[in-house]
Amino acid sequence: LCQPLQALSAPPLPQVAMNGLKEKVLTLDTMNPCVRRVEYAVRGPIVLRALELEQELRQGVKKPFTEVIRANIGDAQAMGQKPITFLRQVLALCVHPDLLNSPDFPEDAKRKAERILQACGGHSLGAYSVSSGIQLIREDVASYIERRDGGIPADPNNIYLSTGASDAILTVLKLLVAGEGPTRTGVLIPIPQYPLYSAALAELNAVQVDYYLDEERAWALDVAELRRALCQARDHCCPRALCIINPGNPTGQVQARECIEAVIRFAFEERLFLMADEVYQDNVYAEGSQFHSFKKVLTEMGPPYATQQELASFHSVSKGYMGECGFRGGYVEVVNLDAAVQQQMQKLLSVRLCPPVPGQVLLSMVVSPPAPSDPSFAQFQAERQAVLAELAAKAKLTEQVFNEAPGIRCNPVQGAMYSFPRVQLPPRAVQRAQELGLAPDMFFCMRLLEETGICVVPGSGFGQREGTYHFRMTILPPMEKLRPLLEKLSQFHAKFTREYS
Amino acid sequence: LCQPLQALSAPPLPQVAMNGLKEKVLTLDTMNPCVRRVEYAVRGPIVLRALELEQELRQGVKKPFTEVIRANIGDAQAMGQKPITFLRQVLALCVHPDLLNSPDFPEDAKRKAERILQACGGHSLGAYSVSSGIQLIREDVASYIERRDGGIPADPNNIYLSTGASDAILTVLKLLVAGEGPTRTGVLIPIPQYPLYSAALAELNAVQVDYYLDEERAWALDVAELRRALCQARDHCCPRALCIINPGNPTGQVQARECIEAVIRFAFEERLFLMADEVYQDNVYAEGSQFHSFKKVLTEMGPPYATQQELASFHSVSKGYMGECGFRGGYVEVVNLDAAVQQQMQKLLSVRLCPPVPGQVLLSMVVSPPAPSDPSFAQFQAERQAVLAELAAKAKLTEQVFNEAPGIRCNPVQGAMYSFPRVQLPPRAVQRAQELGLAPDMFFCMRLLEETGICVVPGSGFGQREGTYHFRMTILPPMEKLRPLLEKLSQFHAKFTREYS
Repeated sequence: LCQPLQALSAPPLPQVAMNGLKEKVLTLDTMNPCVRRVEYAVRGPIVLRALELEQELRQGVKKPFTEVIRANIGDAQAMGQKPITFLRQVLALCVHPDLLNSPDFPEDAKRKAERILQACGGHSLGAYSVSSGIQLIREDVASYIERRDGGIPADPNNIYLSTGASDAILTVLKLLVAGEGPTRTGVLIPIPQYPLYSAALAELNAVQVDYYLDEERAWALDVAELRRALCQARDHCCPRALCIINPGNPTGQVQARECIEAVIRFAFEERLFLMADEVYQDNVYAEGSQFHSFKKVLTEMGPPYATQQELASFHSVSKGYMGECGFRGGYVEVVNLDAAVQQQMQKLLSVRLCPPVPGQVLLSMVVSPPAPSDPSFAQFQAERQAVLAELAAKAKLTEQVFNEAPGIRCNPVQGAMYSFPRVQLPPRAVQRAQELGLAPDMFFCMRLLEETGICVVPGSGFGQREGTYHFRMTILPPMEKLRPLLEKLSQFHAKFTREYS
Repeated sequence: LCQPLQALSAPPLPQVAMNGLKEKVLTLDTMNPCVRRVEYAVRGPIVLRALELEQELRQGVKKPFTEVIRANIGDAQAMGQKPITFLRQVLALCVHPDLLNSPDFPEDAKRKAERILQACGGHSLGAYSVSSGIQLIREDVASYIERRDGGIPADPNNIYLSTGASDAILTVLKLLVAGEGPTRTGVLIPIPQYPLYSAALAELNAVQVDYYLDEERAWALDVAELRRALCQARDHCCPRALCIINPGNPTGQVQARECIEAVIRFAFEERLFLMADEVYQDNVYAEGSQFHSFKKVLTEMGPPYATQQELASFHSVSKGYMGECGFRGGYVEVVNLDAAVQQQMQKLLSVRLCPPVPGQVLLSMVVSPPAPSDPSFAQFQAERQAVLAELAAKAKLTEQVFNEAPGIRCNPVQGAMYSFPRVQLPPRAVQRAQELGLAPDMFFCMRLLEETGICVVPGSGFGQREGTYHFRMTILPPMEKLRPLLEKLSQFHAKFTREYS
């Protein structure tokens, strides 16, 4: 029998523990250390506790509340939003083509379904698609982007469908990581950020480079701050990419066109690959705010930006007005990507075979909805507008109610689906949290959950300036629940403040 | 403006190329070197060429064939297999619950759909599920495993639903990789293998440790060979996991119970984490062959194996009798996993939010199909049996026709969906291939594709003993096409052999 090599750099592994059991192969000490470093607050300890509380309620345990309200995650349909009828009609027809003979489905839904089935292997959603996604749907996405961007061309060959936007973001980051020690890839991300970014960078062993959004100026992005972050990072890593989330998650700001131009100039000068997380492009509510895609701005800036600046832009079926999170559909468009790298990306995607086909089908509807002449147009438009109008009203209400509460300050929710209010926490509460080994805002959010059933995510899970405290709360609860919820939360904060004063 | 750090260990990056263009940030030289090393033959150059040929045919280019037959990938529905009606009925009802009022759906399908919708957030497939998958469906999977394994208990908390089996395999491998240089994680994989394994290990920068299946004994797995591979590997890495594919892909063997016992004893003695790829558990055709799950054998071996040996077993909705590849459903069951590691796995999965819900729904049907008393039972059984019986006949026919051809030798296709015949290639063909910079079997398969339209994957994409040549061909083409296909392929081989003799 051969003996394991005792490498100099690793401690010898104990083969048999004290109790006579062999030690496990896979333990906290022997597992992938990068995975250990991963954190993901949106589904972290507070959400696990919320699940437990729901179970306790079902078992009849008495609580000071009757239901847990999950305002922790951008999951519209879990909060009661109804699916858009047309999307589900087409998908049902594709899933079960016998329905194509049913009189209960509109003609345009049937036409769409037949067109998609024609493009599927064996005319079935059950076949793998090509790894980049069904060609027809990539063409639909390209047409959508062209319409969105005022006619600027989009090439279907630069579009890759994905398992939600997260999957595409991970793929692009995976291409970018390289080097060791001081040449390790650094990636600039906003603080506050959506923690997919920090989690992915930890998993990939890349360096997270924080740039701070300016809370005093409604979470504006400032190029001077980008430059500060970049310069400091160059001491210890090789910054190669810059992530932007617009509209902002968790911060809800919508970037002005001039700001986007400045960011593009900065990225070009500093040789940074741009990653534009634009999954909330349909979620813009504030008057005067407008979504500008990085692709459009970059193209309109002309050469050298239009011809050379590398960009990946991400979109998803999980947000917008449709909120079809469970289907895991999305895409990335790459711009000015090196041709050989693009082949490598194609190869990497092929290992995963293909994105889920139902998510591809829903994406196809989102990017090519009913036209005015189609029988489904009126209902589709009405449903879409109703969702977006209600979201806009809820965005406004959230800002308003929070800003009436002493000790809470909330920037305008210009877009996306979240408020990220700042809360003052009394020094004695901060001290108590430290005694418990908790971040002060985690302590606040846990107490909030236990006493009110409201589940929000502490700001520390997204990043915030030292000494400031926030939480992220979605604007998704139904209107009739949202106002009482906001008031209950404000009252809890007041009580919490008194308790620790 | 700050200057980039010129790290000692990295060559300075050229900022501006000769033509005045800035060099791209992301190039072959600067991208992730692990991704560059990834190879995935099942969708490699031969498949890209097949796609091109299909396009040329559509454009009216004259070819010596009228259609490309994609026998490269285990994609039953792409080859014309019809979906199982009950699965699609339930899914259509879940996608578009208005159909619950339709008289065209059987009552048991409606009951199933209602039960699933009750378990979904907001009673909709459009909500995220918990990251490990819908609890109800995990319970269904646990019951299925218990029935399959003769009553041995399965815990739903040890079951994680996934985006196809590939996703779950990558997750478990990701937990296992650690170390550098001689302590780098080594993973034993069979040769020939399914190239997901080599691709994943390259991407994760782990060490691939090859053990050879014995072609002379119908691709049997021999513990002496496992030991040889392990001992040699310990010189340069730290082997920590052993992957088994049973029934075999691409090799089609079904492991005997004694063999599985020997593998488990070996893994236990040598402290290897077992990964059992059992996605073809429903695809067993040969008389006398039977599927034994690693979980069942391990449990029946009693302590210390039953209580200590770590195991992950994978299953999928893409294979079996249903072949629902496009939905990307699957699961992993973990056994004897360290509790703290399991929490880490849970956390890692949460970053990806959740597996696609439609795939979860299909999995639920696969693990809890109609019972004999249900209205859909008869049709479901008939459809299921028809698929499996035809696959069995095609497995037999494939073996038979190939073995009639001089220079081709094919082991019995006891299970799974592939034959992996060995072909003799004349020395002059080998030489010609080398001149062209191609693996000899790639040269053969490319010529086959160009002259006959038959797309199969060269053995070099799966691994094979030096100096032997194979290809993988699915048994999925419809019966009426399969015999002519096999004969055409055999004739082409004869012609190719004459040409280079």
